[in-house]
Amino acid sequence: MAASKGRKNAFYAQSGGVTAVINASACGVIETARAHRDVIANVYAGRNGIIGALTEELIDTGKESAAAIRALRTTPAGAFGSCRYKLKSLDKNRREYERLIEVFRAHDIAWFFYNGGGDSADTCFKVSQLSQALGYPLQAIHVPKTVDNDLPITDCCPGFGSVAKYVAVSALEASFDVRSMARTSTKVFVLEVMGRHAGWIAAAGGLIEEHGIPVVILFPEIEFDEAKFIARVDALVKEHGYCTVVVSEGAHRADGTFLAEQGTRDAFGHAQLGGAAPVVASMIKAALGHKFHWAVADYLQRAARHIASKTDVRQAYELGKRAVELALKGRNAVMPTIERTSDVPYRYRIGVADLADVANVEKFMPRDFISADGFSITEKCRRYLRPLIAGEDYPAYRGGLPVYATLKNVPVAPRLAPFALQ
Amino acid sequence: MAASKGRKNAFYAQSGGVTAVINASACGVIETARAHRDVIANVYAGRNGIIGALTEELIDTGKESAAAIRALRTTPAGAFGSCRYKLKSLDKNRREYERLIEVFRAHDIAWFFYNGGGDSADTCFKVSQLSQALGYPLQAIHVPKTVDNDLPITDCCPGFGSVAKYVAVSALEASFDVRSMARTSTKVFVLEVMGRHAGWIAAAGGLIEEHGIPVVILFPEIEFDEAKFIARVDALVKEHGYCTVVVSEGAHRADGTFLAEQGTRDAFGHAQLGGAAPVVASMIKAALGHKFHWAVADYLQRAARHIASKTDVRQAYELGKRAVELALKGRNAVMPTIERTSDVPYRYRIGVADLADVANVEKFMPRDFISADGFSITEKCRRYLRPLIAGEDYPAYRGGLPVYATLKNVPVAPRLAPFALQ
Repeated sequence: MAASKGRKNAFYAQSGGVTAVINASACGVIETARAHRDVIANVYAGRNGIIGALTEELIDTGKESAAAIRALRTTPAGAFGSCRYKLKSLDKNRREYERLIEVFRAHDIAWFFYNGGGDSADTCFKVSQLSQALGYPLQAIHVPKTVDNDLPITDCCPGFGSVAKYVAVSALEASFDVRSMARTSTKVFVLEVMGRHAGWIAAAGGLIEEHGIPVVILFPEIEFDEAKFIARVDALVKEHGYCTVVVSEGAHRADGTFLAEQGTRDAFGHAQLGGAAPVVASMIKAALGHKFHWAVADYLQRAARHIASKTDVRQAYELGKRAVELALKGRNAVMPTIERTSDVPYRYRIGVADLADVANVEKFMPRDFISADGFSITEKCRRYLRPLIAGEDYPAYRGGLPVYATLKNVPVAPRLAPFALQ
Repeated sequence: MAASKGRKNAFYAQSGGVTAVINASACGVIETARAHRDVIANVYAGRNGIIGALTEELIDTGKESAAAIRALRTTPAGAFGSCRYKLKSLDKNRREYERLIEVFRAHDIAWFFYNGGGDSADTCFKVSQLSQALGYPLQAIHVPKTVDNDLPITDCCPGFGSVAKYVAVSALEASFDVRSMARTSTKVFVLEVMGRHAGWIAAAGGLIEEHGIPVVILFPEIEFDEAKFIARVDALVKEHGYCTVVVSEGAHRADGTFLAEQGTRDAFGHAQLGGAAPVVASMIKAALGHKFHWAVADYLQRAARHIASKTDVRQAYELGKRAVELALKGRNAVMPTIERTSDVPYRYRIGVADLADVANVEKFMPRDFISADGFSITEKCRRYLRPLIAGEDYPAYRGGLPVYATLKNVPVAPRLAPFALQ
């Protein structure tokens, strides 16, 4: 519906790698906007993120039923499409910013909700400055999302709790498997997880130690020392008969090379693709002779809505909701955050951070979350992680498969000449 | 407890690769035996499968509470340990068979329940013949289990339905992810699944086509043709903007070499490890230039009790129960089976097969379950698969993780001299 009587429209876009709960944030944004129809006429979503704003490919979420929007809460990935596209600075690419304003003006858009990670917070911050720089009234609010859990200020990021739960559950189950087989077969299981720079996801594998499982974790924050690693695996297999290794894709050697970089070539001389898991597994085989299995979870981990954390789903929704409330209060250049007030029982409130303090800052694992030997997590880390994976929030199923929503995604009629992305 | 007044003990062992529901069969065996305490004094489980019988490492399941045995129903992997250990023929290794009888005699064991796949059915059949050959009264009943779904006669095998559900759910979720990212990033997602000889597990990925997902499946039953495969991926990406590939670990070229065999060497000249997924992904990148992601599910898929199929769990339990009932009826050298009587609504009854007909027979995908082009499944296959993944059977959770049982596994005091495995 068109904005009228002073009502304006909102723009919402998903950015970067998607998660199991980013649509729950979309649900929070849209449902809250609908609850304030006296102010917010409609929410237009960017098709494929910010690109949709540049190319004027807007999706009219007003055409979706209340049930369809509600279903976003239990649907993984990005319902409107996401993108990896970072705006340059205003100085370097004024053309794109002017186009954004042109599109927002053509569609009466007064609020910009951007749902993403660190790079997106930077983009959102730049957009928040346009109001002054280009003389168009616009409020930009960032809705945090990242499985990497590496945004500053907020205690945690929506998307992380669910991937952490997936990793802990999967590592527990695979460890039960290898424990069963270890007498005559597999003795070491290696699971590769995401986290190019920060080891938060790998850390979640450490939660299964409390279930009696011997685990070795390889963090990006700790330089890989092959001799120490092999000695640790050897000791655990001698004591327990088996062990599980959780390796972050970002684990690297002292010289900065990733474990996944094998320096190998295929028959045609191409650099060999491959994850860190097979490298680590073959290292163990070469040094200790143990039979191994390895898995690379890749997208399965961040898309696994079927085993999402209830805490995570709730927070994803609440942060979307709060973003709209902040906009209605006239705020600009901010991001709602999780402020933890208690570990046990878990309590938190929704806070607010200035985007200037969020953009381009990465939060790594504190050293005191990692054990002295660098292969495990500490009780402090466990206290941090436990509430984030707590609770189950199952989707509905039909015929054995989850019922995930695919929206109609009705386009808003364009009003401007086409725009070429560079 | 010791056998008395004519009561005898039963032996139960888990064999080969474990599954999400093999413990549900153990639960069915033990609970049913307990319901017939007037005949079956106790169930002794083999520690690490048949090896436990040879080394006289027996586990006294009578020491486990009713609640602990009930918890097996929702616990993945092998609660007593499994093994990969195939008995040779009686001619070639009479020593091992005589030892088995010696151990069974020492512990008053009259029933042998063996829970495994094709190789295990063969072992169970050999044991079933001992009664005559070695003059010791013993009934051997096989309880089917294999994620590969490749046992003959039975309509399906416990373990398969749950791995099929895991693969379908995971492929659906990852496909939603890649669909979100395809505009500027990943266009092809490759998921590698188990199935060295038969494509049943890969076929489950085809169930998501009904959800509008473009999927290409690579079956072990169909010789891999790179040009045809690339053309198919190209067509789907052009039509949908993305596609998902599900590749069986057993997919191979016309010359019999597996896709996973890359002929590559690492820096030290070692043959390169690696799954089929990275090979297929790099093939697509080389031919079409698409950005890709790949995952290898490995043990995660067969251990995933958290997303087990309700049908599968129920059948696993029922077949364990029926195995004991067959024993009580005096049967020997048999295996309870699933006899499907209707696809929609799904109906089945428990039948019985002679082990002589089961041992060493592999069941492949019928050609009419695979589409003419070899890359998809037919409606006939979908009708077969749908009921097997139907229903959810969630474990209980505590603190965000499933509550899986670890038994006390109290050893039975040995009565014989040690025995060295060869």
